[in-house]
Amino acid sequence: MVAMQIGFLGGTGIEGKGLALRFAVAGAQVMLGSRSEERAQAAARAYNELAGTSSIRGMLNRDMLAACELVFLTVPYQNAVPALESCKTDFRAGQILVDVTVPMLFRDGRAEYVDQESGSNSELVARHLPAGVQLVAAFKTIPAHLLAELDTPLNCDIFICGDSREAREKVITAARGIPAVRPLDAGPLITARTLERMTVLAVNLNRLYRKKGARYRVEGL
Amino acid sequence: MVAMQIGFLGGTGIEGKGLALRFAVAGAQVMLGSRSEERAQAAARAYNELAGTSSIRGMLNRDMLAACELVFLTVPYQNAVPALESCKTDFRAGQILVDVTVPMLFRDGRAEYVDQESGSNSELVARHLPAGVQLVAAFKTIPAHLLAELDTPLNCDIFICGDSREAREKVITAARGIPAVRPLDAGPLITARTLERMTVLAVNLNRLYRKKGARYRVEGL
Repeated sequence: MVAMQIGFLGGTGIEGKGLALRFAVAGAQVMLGSRSEERAQAAARAYNELAGTSSIRGMLNRDMLAACELVFLTVPYQNAVPALESCKTDFRAGQILVDVTVPMLFRDGRAEYVDQESGSNSELVARHLPAGVQLVAAFKTIPAHLLAELDTPLNCDIFICGDSREAREKVITAARGIPAVRPLDAGPLITARTLERMTVLAVNLNRLYRKKGARYRVEGL
Repeated sequence: MVAMQIGFLGGTGIEGKGLALRFAVAGAQVMLGSRSEERAQAAARAYNELAGTSSIRGMLNRDMLAACELVFLTVPYQNAVPALESCKTDFRAGQILVDVTVPMLFRDGRAEYVDQESGSNSELVARHLPAGVQLVAAFKTIPAHLLAELDTPLNCDIFICGDSREAREKVITAARGIPAVRPLDAGPLITARTLERMTVLAVNLNRLYRKKGARYRVEGL
């Protein structure tokens, strides 16, 4: 049971859909933020139907940010900084932003990591963080479509990194509410360089082995 | 059963020990190369005793390179290029070099990836490859000490990358001889950037969770 209000900045796309569904099923109050209230409410209706819940609500990003301590940034990776900048003044000190983005492109049928001057997309996002907000990178290595398939047990680990231990622990606590995932503390934000690349590897393994749900487990912990 | 002659360049250190033992148990002819024939022979005696085999032999790197098609480069990462340069003229076209090195250092009790201008240590090694030799990066993410604990089933995947598909497949075939590991084709050599970082993550997970054998499995393949 996740007794939390969990917000999604850019909550109507595929990046956020699965997490919103899984957290709603786990008992959280889910708030889908969008630039369009109408689109957010339509997504909320659709997601509640899929999840068999009534706790998902759609609203403007601004209203979501006024209500949620934990906010997932669920937009395509190129939009992460613009999305953040567009509502920077709506954040409050003490909030936690969870970045799930992975900079990746497809070339000749293969996924490629898009090298970031900052080292990772999460570290780029960190440079644009509103004051007093802590950044955590998490859920990067689980395929978005797999999260959205509620009938499929996840059976995997999720890696959670960030420079604030307290913020990591809050995300770990929230993630524990999702069945069949084990949240692992992956240390400081620099680990995002690893996690983002692991996602690209998983995508390429899917392609090569003609599967769709490659994801990671750590044996021996 | 691995019906192969498998060589180790720098075969007397901890980096090569576990692989030598596991391949010997799997039936391969294992040749430990060293700059010192005496040291190589001493290691071979010790390893045969541990593995309950008689197929591990010690010899000069030069003699190992004259005999083996598949050669593991098992030295500390900083020594990879010097070790290769020191016996560059002893390689033959058609040989496969398998790089297991990971550039890593410890600072304040944490493992850190040592950024490489080339992108990864394997890509650095690739720049110093003898003519006609193919490079494969593999076994990077399994802890060396775990490989050497023959009583512990590995129960994990190993990731194999390199720019020659044929070379990758030869390493995959060899790796299939080791029980309880699943070799996965991880694509071109650039994936070494991912694999080397995954090792650092595993080391830090071990440290945080007070374990020693963190290693990866891919679910859903």
